[in-house]
Amino acid sequence: MHYTDHIIGKPMDRLECLFCARKYPLNVFEVFCPCCHEPMLISSTPRKRSIALDRSLSLEKYQSFLPLAHVDRTLSLGEGDTPLLLLDRVRRKHHLPPVYAKNETVNPTQSFKDRGTAVAVQKAVALGIKSIGTVSTGNMAGSTAAYGARAGLKTVVLLKEDMPSDKIRAAGIYGPILLKVRGDYGELFAASLDIGRKQGIYFMNSIDPLRIEGYKVIGYEIFQQLGGRVPRYLFVPVSSGGHLIGLLRAFLNLREEGLTADLPALVGVQAKGCSPVARAFAGGKARYSRFRQAETVAHAISNPAPPGGNLVLKLVRENSGMVMAVTDTEIVAAQRELAELEGIFADPASATVLAALIKFSRRQRLGLRDEVVLVITGSGLKSMDTVERLDISVRQTSLSRLEKTLRLIGV
Amino acid sequence: MHYTDHIIGKPMDRLECLFCARKYPLNVFEVFCPCCHEPMLISSTPRKRSIALDRSLSLEKYQSFLPLAHVDRTLSLGEGDTPLLLLDRVRRKHHLPPVYAKNETVNPTQSFKDRGTAVAVQKAVALGIKSIGTVSTGNMAGSTAAYGARAGLKTVVLLKEDMPSDKIRAAGIYGPILLKVRGDYGELFAASLDIGRKQGIYFMNSIDPLRIEGYKVIGYEIFQQLGGRVPRYLFVPVSSGGHLIGLLRAFLNLREEGLTADLPALVGVQAKGCSPVARAFAGGKARYSRFRQAETVAHAISNPAPPGGNLVLKLVRENSGMVMAVTDTEIVAAQRELAELEGIFADPASATVLAALIKFSRRQRLGLRDEVVLVITGSGLKSMDTVERLDISVRQTSLSRLEKTLRLIGV
Repeated sequence: MHYTDHIIGKPMDRLECLFCARKYPLNVFEVFCPCCHEPMLISSTPRKRSIALDRSLSLEKYQSFLPLAHVDRTLSLGEGDTPLLLLDRVRRKHHLPPVYAKNETVNPTQSFKDRGTAVAVQKAVALGIKSIGTVSTGNMAGSTAAYGARAGLKTVVLLKEDMPSDKIRAAGIYGPILLKVRGDYGELFAASLDIGRKQGIYFMNSIDPLRIEGYKVIGYEIFQQLGGRVPRYLFVPVSSGGHLIGLLRAFLNLREEGLTADLPALVGVQAKGCSPVARAFAGGKARYSRFRQAETVAHAISNPAPPGGNLVLKLVRENSGMVMAVTDTEIVAAQRELAELEGIFADPASATVLAALIKFSRRQRLGLRDEVVLVITGSGLKSMDTVERLDISVRQTSLSRLEKTLRLIGV
Repeated sequence: MHYTDHIIGKPMDRLECLFCARKYPLNVFEVFCPCCHEPMLISSTPRKRSIALDRSLSLEKYQSFLPLAHVDRTLSLGEGDTPLLLLDRVRRKHHLPPVYAKNETVNPTQSFKDRGTAVAVQKAVALGIKSIGTVSTGNMAGSTAAYGARAGLKTVVLLKEDMPSDKIRAAGIYGPILLKVRGDYGELFAASLDIGRKQGIYFMNSIDPLRIEGYKVIGYEIFQQLGGRVPRYLFVPVSSGGHLIGLLRAFLNLREEGLTADLPALVGVQAKGCSPVARAFAGGKARYSRFRQAETVAHAISNPAPPGGNLVLKLVRENSGMVMAVTDTEIVAAQRELAELEGIFADPASATVLAALIKFSRRQRLGLRDEVVLVITGSGLKSMDTVERLDISVRQTSLSRLEKTLRLIGV
């Protein structure tokens, strides 16, 4: 089966490996470069690109930057157009420059994954694909299942054997085929792509090139919401690496179009308990090595062998970025601070970015003009297990004593 | 303590009882008419109102329709601007006219409550109030706690004695004072207002007049998203009644401004297991009576004595609307259908609106031009207990058998 992009005509988009610079026709079943085994990205033929703010869907506004000849509104769940919130109380507490949160929890399935799924599903339907799938332990399962349902596609979600049943149900509600697979999770990722190619199932996994195109839109929106400015620093959690790669590509695109001369410094953040990319970055290495005995509260980014890890290392080095790690203690404190000071309930994986900024600001003097954007990738509501361990006190009283109790507490 | 609106000057907004037509100065501690004991609404002095689509926050776009002299961006969590999604697969399955879902689950704390809290907190801060509170069993607790945190206000959440700890934690993460109160829940509602008045704590409960102003914005957005059209029918779940009242007021406002000549028919929906307002409507009564032995899966609208119930009855009668009830079986089926056909994970309370539309369309012939909007008020993620009872099947396989398994299933 061959689904290549010429089926839907111009613009002609291709797959490109940034390591060997080879290009291939766009084919949704191919993810890794045949020679380098690194993830490939979409390379678009030069064309005039511009932002169309008068359109209603986020995908339509930035369509000319995406490999979509057409946006089918019936496939969209209204993803994107998420708020960029000034975190003034956090800023004052930690003596920071202006800090903003790009709140991706306000997406149809409460995570940034919807950005990528939206683009991948648009392409799948345009190419006449009938079956999609994903390998996931959490947010991606729900996102893929929701968009698959909306598009009327057969959707299969491959799960780790030990996945807790509440996480399964949050994806299962959309009616996908749920399949628990015994065996190594990394091998499952590779096997899914192989089987997908044979059986015509488009597995839109974490590092999928079309998914990464979707993540670019987060970057365009940040640029737009800052009034056409580029932040000095952009902090983002790193799991597979796809999200960081997409964000950086967005700003590279904007620079290519002459919309800005600057790039933000991308700061990728991992949890210390599973930080293969941060470790390699700190050690000055071009390639990471698999992380043994991963253990962190930040489940959503606990990826011991991120398929985009080497590409992240290459891109941050070429573009003055960095990758750092924060401890679980720092993560939990940052999660609580985001909620208590700013009213944002982030999952531990997203809270890493605030923890990293606080750490970073102690090492590096930040000036008033060093605007920072933190990408909050997923909602804490899907990781209630962490919250259960927090000390949240509940007082008791009776109706007749309520007035006195409130006076004593001093509300 | 007196917090009246003249502190912040013009425009002068007042409280109005629609039963006796009396007006009072706006005072955030007063909710019920002193003579009729029915909820009061905000009545604005006539002024030129218009939609400002070029503004970035939803509250700013519709500010001239709201009792806010100023919108403080630092208090906003980016509420609103939620998607209006055409439900084409649901439409085809049930032979319906064009049906849209206004997806309020895509709000900062995953429910429409954020619309009301956003306005109430803006006003609280403008008036110099330092303490806010709410009486809630779910969504409102989280919403009030989040906005209270963002604004740096002391926030107290009064809880029912038997509230499950996971629901408490989803609000507790924002750091409010959590207080479980023994005693009747209805009395607690009344007591909170009384104590609030004495101690200067603004209890922004379900039927709060400023909260209702916030719900109006959902109506303005629907009008705007339909390209300046008014839907023929607007279905909304009814708990306290505040949401329906706000939506209707929005369209009345638009008509006053000459932006439309039409009003939608408001269809309020309750769960049969707790349907005091629907029962009174069916019986042709002007007043509902308290519902005994409430029991439904739709916890978020299980309100046996809704404080706005009589006002809802009055308003739907005067404006060609209605109130209906649906069974738990219909609710659960509709919840699943919204997820499986359209990729929207609604809570059971919100799924009532689809169940009601399907029922309604069997009784009433709907034409192609009878556009319907369903307001999806809250996310299913906060009511996982219902989903646990659904039959969601998970298959098992091993890595080595995966290819064969997928072929057998026929993905």
